[in-house]
Parts: sequence; C-alpha cells; structure tokens
Amino acid sequence: MQIYDNPSRDRWEELLQRPASDLGKLEATVREVMNRVKEEGDAALREYTARFDGVELDDFSVPAATVEAAADQVPDDLKRAIQTAHDNIETFHRSQQTQVEEIETMPGVRCWRESRGIDRVGLYIPGGTAPLFSTVLMLAVPARLAGCREIVLCSPPDRQGNIHPAILYTAHLCGVTRIFRLGGSQAIAAMTYGTATVPQVYKIFGPGNAFVTVAKQLALLQGLAIDMPAGPSEVLVCADAGAADAHVAADLLSQAEHGHDSQVVLVTDRREKAEGVWQEVQRQLAELPRRELAAQSIANSFALVFDDWSEAADYVNAYAPEHLILSLADPRSFAGQIRNAGSIFLGYHTPESVGDYASGTNHTLPTYGYARQYSGVSLDSFVKKITFQELTADGLRNIGPAVETMAEAEQLRAHRNAVSLRLRDLPS
Amino acid sequence: MQIYDNPSRDRWEELLQRPASDLGKLEATVREVMNRVKEEGDAALREYTARFDGVELDDFSVPAATVEAAADQVPDDLKRAIQTAHDNIETFHRSQQTQVEEIETMPGVRCWRESRGIDRVGLYIPGGTAPLFSTVLMLAVPARLAGCREIVLCSPPDRQGNIHPAILYTAHLCGVTRIFRLGGSQAIAAMTYGTATVPQVYKIFGPGNAFVTVAKQLALLQGLAIDMPAGPSEVLVCADAGAADAHVAADLLSQAEHGHDSQVVLVTDRREKAEGVWQEVQRQLAELPRRELAAQSIANSFALVFDDWSEAADYVNAYAPEHLILSLADPRSFAGQIRNAGSIFLGYHTPESVGDYASGTNHTLPTYGYARQYSGVSLDSFVKKITFQELTADGLRNIGPAVETMAEAEQLRAHRNAVSLRLRDLPS
Repeated sequence: MQIYDNPSRDRWEELLQRPASDLGKLEATVREVMNRVKEEGDAALREYTARFDGVELDDFSVPAATVEAAADQVPDDLKRAIQTAHDNIETFHRSQQTQVEEIETMPGVRCWRESRGIDRVGLYIPGGTAPLFSTVLMLAVPARLAGCREIVLCSPPDRQGNIHPAILYTAHLCGVTRIFRLGGSQAIAAMTYGTATVPQVYKIFGPGNAFVTVAKQLALLQGLAIDMPAGPSEVLVCADAGAADAHVAADLLSQAEHGHDSQVVLVTDRREKAEGVWQEVQRQLAELPRRELAAQSIANSFALVFDDWSEAADYVNAYAPEHLILSLADPRSFAGQIRNAGSIFLGYHTPESVGDYASGTNHTLPTYGYARQYSGVSLDSFVKKITFQELTADGLRNIGPAVETMAEAEQLRAHRNAVSLRLRDLPS
Repeated sequence: MQIYDNPSRDRWEELLQRPASDLGKLEATVREVMNRVKEEGDAALREYTARFDGVELDDFSVPAATVEAAADQVPDDLKRAIQTAHDNIETFHRSQQTQVEEIETMPGVRCWRESRGIDRVGLYIPGGTAPLFSTVLMLAVPARLAGCREIVLCSPPDRQGNIHPAILYTAHLCGVTRIFRLGGSQAIAAMTYGTATVPQVYKIFGPGNAFVTVAKQLALLQGLAIDMPAGPSEVLVCADAGAADAHVAADLLSQAEHGHDSQVVLVTDRREKAEGVWQEVQRQLAELPRRELAAQSIANSFALVFDDWSEAADYVNAYAPEHLILSLADPRSFAGQIRNAGSIFLGYHTPESVGDYASGTNHTLPTYGYARQYSGVSLDSFVKKITFQELTADGLRNIGPAVETMAEAEQLRAHRNAVSLRLRDLPS
C-alpha cells in the first residue's frame, strides 16, 4: 500500500482515478442478446440459459410451493438475522415516506405533490458462490413500501436449475410477486421487452457483472429507468489517532474482498496510522477465505496523509466515495464538510458492514464517482412524484395576468387563450 | 378529430401510441460532434457555432455587463410577471426541502439522510423564435435553492451572436453563475467534457431538439446524469358536462401549438362534449399565429368517450400523460385513481398554462409515457441524498450478531471481521 504524504493538488488527479472500465467491447454481444430476446422471447431465454448457466429449463418461473418450501432450508439463526435486517430497513425506508403538503403559492393557487409506486419493477440478483439475499432486502423492502404492484425478481439458476433458498426465502418475506430463474443480460432483456413468461417492467434495479451493466444501459436507451450506473464497489476510510488499526484494516478488507477491481483508500492525519493499518491489513488478509481477490484490490489501494483535515475533506469531495467511514473522534463536524458520498459511517463503532446488511440504510449506492450526481437507492427510487395544482376562480384572477403576459412574450397565444377565455367567462 | 366510443381494451394499444421517434439515425452525427468537442475543445465549438448558428464568435461567455444591461430591454409588465412566477416557483420548491430526521432503527443505531446540492449543473435553454425564459425559471430556481455551487446555462446565439434579453434577465434573477452562447449538441458536448471556456458539469437539464436529445443520451452513457428522457409534449384533458367547450378547446390547442408532433387527447363521458369541443377547436385554431403547427398535431389527435369514468381512469393510467387536465366537477376523486401522470390540473379553473408558467409547479415533466417511471423536475433533481449511520457501543452490540450471521452466510468474512473485532475490543 503506497503512502502519499500531503500530496499537492496537481497530483490529485491521478489519486482520484478509478480502475478503467471498457464496457464498449461487450456492447455488440449484449445487443444481440437483447434483440434475440425481443424477437424470439422465451425460446431465446431457454437457449441462453442453457449456454450461459448450463441448465435446460422449460419454465423459468419458480413455483409458489418451491418459494414457500425454501424456508425449511434456511437455518434459524440466519432467518432471525434476516428478520432483524428487514425490520430495520423497513423502519428507515418507511421514515422516507412524505406527507402530502398543500402549498398556497398565491391566494387561491394550491400546489402539492403525491407519490405513486411504479407499477412494475424488476430486481436483478446476481448468482455466483454467495447468495446475495441482502440485496433482495435492499430492493424489495422499499419496493413494497412504495406500493409497487408487481415486483419481479430475476436471479440465475445454478446447474441444477435452482436459486439459493436464502434468496427465495428473503424474496418471499419481502413480498416479491414473481421470481424467475434467469441471469445475465438475457434476464435484463426479458424484463425490458417482456416475453410470454416474463412481464415487462418500467424500472430495473440491482447489481451485476459487466454484461448485466451493459444490458441495463441498453434498457435505459429503450426508455426504461434504471437505479443508477454501475461500477466496482469502493470505500474510503478516514482514521485519526483514536481509530484502532485492526478495525480500520478490517474495514478496508471488507471492501477489498468484493473483487479484484474494488477500490480501497485510507485517509489519515499521521503517517504512523497508515503504517500500522498496513501491517494489520497484511496480517488479517492472510486469514481470509477470499484472500486472493482481496489481495488484488489491496495491491491497488493507497493511503493519503493530510496534516490538515479540511484539505482531506476537499480530497474526499473530489473522490466522491461510495462508502465513507469516518473513524474520527468528531465525525459529525467532518461530515458537515462532505458534499459527495454515497453513505457515511460515523464514529469508531460503525463499520461499513452494518450498513451493508442491517442498520436500515440502503446498500445500493453510487460508486465510481457517481456520488457527485446520484443518490443511493431509497424509497424515492420506487415512486414517481406527481405534481398537482388547483385554482379557485379568485386564484385564476390573481395569477391569470402574469400567465397571459408570459405566454404572449413566448409567442404562445393558445396558452394565453386558455387563461383569457376562462377569465372572460368568470362571473364578475 | 376522430372520436372513439367506449373502445374495447383490445383497441387500446393503438390508442396509446405516441408518434414514432427515430433518433438512432442522428447518432453518428452527434457522436462526431461530441468527440470533436472532447478532442478540440473551444476550436470545435467555434466551428460548429459558425456552421449551425451562422455566427462567428471568439468568446462564448456572456459578459456580466451584458447580462445586467438586459434588464433595460425587458418590458416592465413582463418583469413583473416573471417576478410573480419566480416567487411562486420558489415557494413551492422550497416546500420540497426536507428536514433531517434521525431514526433509531434499533437502540443505539441511528440512521438519517441529508441533502447536498450537486456541485455543478448545466441548463440548456433552446433558441428559436420564442425566448423560453419560463424554462430558465423552472431549472434555475430549484438549482439555486438546492445549493448548487455552479449553475451553467447554454443557449444558442442568434445571427447577431446574442441571447434574447428575457433569457439573460431571468437567468440573472435566478442566480445562474455562467452563461454561454452555445446551442445544439455542441453545447451538450461542451458541458459533458468541459473545454477551456466551458466548465464540465455533473448533470444536464433542459429541453431541446432531436440533436440535443441524442447528445444528452450520449452524455448519460458517459456517466453524467440528465433530468429525464425527452419526447414531444402532450396533454390529456378529461372533461365532463360542466366543462366549457371553449376552455377545453383552448387547453387542447395550447399543447398542439408546441409543435407538429405534440399529442392531444380528449376523454369525456358524452359524445356531444367531444363534438362541441371539436367545433370550438376549429374556430379557435383559425385565429392562432401558430395555426399551421397546431393544425398538424390536432390532425393526429382524438377523443375517447367512456360511459364509465373508472374505465377512463384505467385508460389514463395506461397512457401516462405528461399533463393531465381534470375539467371535472369532482376532480379530486378521479385524481385519486391516477397512478401515472406528470402533472395534474384540477377543476374548471386550472388550465395547463398556469403550470407552464407560474403556479409554482415545475413544467419539466416526463412525456411519451415516461410518467410510468419518472417524476418531473423538482428540488430533488438538483440534490443527492447522502445516507448516514452512527452506532453507539450498545448499538453495535445489538446489531452485531445479525450482521455477523448474514456476512458469514454471504461468505464475506472480512465484512464479519469488521464487526467481530470491534465487539471483541469493546469494554465488557
């Protein structure tokens, strides 16, 4: 782990870089998958599932009986943990519901907003060695709270054609309405266009590999909404003298174990802290089951020493980290200076992993610098806010002349007429 | 205007169609503009401005003195109207500010969200015959309220190299920080990549022609955010017996005059209403300055008669109109059934044009069916919401075991360690 001591600003640009991503080269392949699913529907899904997942499936949907039976295959302690996480996530996301507040902008002119759940949403849950039931919680809990009528979940089948029972169990707990054994870009294509089996959705959520990422981009160009652009996960840890080296090292490693392209940055106000943490990283790394993956991203990681914490805050804002851990004695005052981050973890007792699973905040967050312009997933991600306005006759009398003047200045006579004719017909 | 009487559901699909858009054929042209601006910066901007706007410019930025002098060229009644609209828009968007609310999801586990303005936003204001100062209000007022530090505005110069004084005046009133005489896809390219003159922004807002639309899509794929996908403007008016034919006709025409591809739909519960409105449309149309444009979109418009208003509500939800005018005796009960719309105008005294200009709601709205999954522009569009969490030692004791269990089940040992090591080191 390279340590940079008070790097001058002209060196920052290189210290803000993320791993290069070259998704463009996948575009032709994914476009073909999308087009074939659009044209051939379920037949194309069957062929791709056989090719990419190694299993022949007649029916992609998971029967209700299978979903219900999954509970028997999930250990009780895991069920209790999932329930705890579920309840916290539900509590926090429910607090994001807004009351309708009618505003009288002028006498007789009332405006307000009301939220409506997106009718049909699609959740993509990747497969692989570990079942990402936590992501099911993070997407399905707010979807249900938002009032989405159909919550469709796609996740790739294993070679026996199954989805991990922890995923099925969690999906059932959270009110997912339909579950399909479909993975990769073909799953995104199915939800984008709809097939005889899979319903078309209006917005697609969830992480995935590069093929899934490109497919979501293409879905976006088809007019679907997506949660946010994807990128490798990352953490930036700010640690002062009071932070335990072992804790900081564990935080860095918890991000590094996600994959070889994960980003891990340490910011501190003393060089000894960086050195101490680095020793702890090496010690803990050797014990990790996923040490090979973690070692690759640790190799690209670095530490920055800033004598001045306000300089550090500028660097953090320029970096715009997905996860920002503030292992500081006074984390709130530093957090007040942060404008760009996905989620912030305050104090010595708040590791990122509590937010990844169970504190209640959402773990679907903007990475790769996108925290400059995107928020993480929240209840807002699953609703549209419709604006309303209602005028009384007096309201129209009050606002009408301004509208007439502006419409005329924009040379839109019919806009003016819609007001003038109503004013003419009002009882005097 | 074709009238459909209680169309059966199998005919709805054709009645939900929007005008086809074929933006794909512009992609190569726009991609070249984007690439040349990226590579050559201001030199490319100069060349494109000479070619497309017919004016040679050395400097694209509008000097502060010019901006301030614009006030002298705007009539006083228009200034007063703009001020009225400004104040209403500010009042309504200010009401969208949310208080920070800390939630204790479990004892010792606190979560909350805080809003931060996007540091640099870009507003695009089209040129053409009419100066769209109303769009400046709709974008710059919430940008300033949100706390965006830099608000960049691009608008094409006329052949004398000027931007209309009403646009400059409104931009100044709203706190726009930089104004550039740049239009079309080259303006979007400049804000996407930045040049020596024009700063790079993180999110681009505003309407535009097909070239601008394609450029915004390409910007999106570069990682910038945009307000929403674009499409031709549209209105759906629901009118019952109490609605005056002349008012309904004016509402339909106020949308039709936007352009030949605008969509205009009337929904009513009696055929005579449709026929009466149609006669009024023809009468008013003949008097409009933009009657040729309006006639083209009126030719594609139609009326639907539904005996049953709940069937009508289903149709409206399937159509997902940008603007929905409810010229009904009891508009609130009908509005309660609507899930998909951009903005809703309730009652006989609420024409769309009040929302276009001055009621306080935003006029940048999802069209083309995108109201199924997108909201209109609001204060939310200019901020990111950062999530926070802070645990006490007891909070970590309470939540820790659940996190450890879930991390282990997802085979992420370092995630577990970040909790376990902290729990180990807590004073017992």
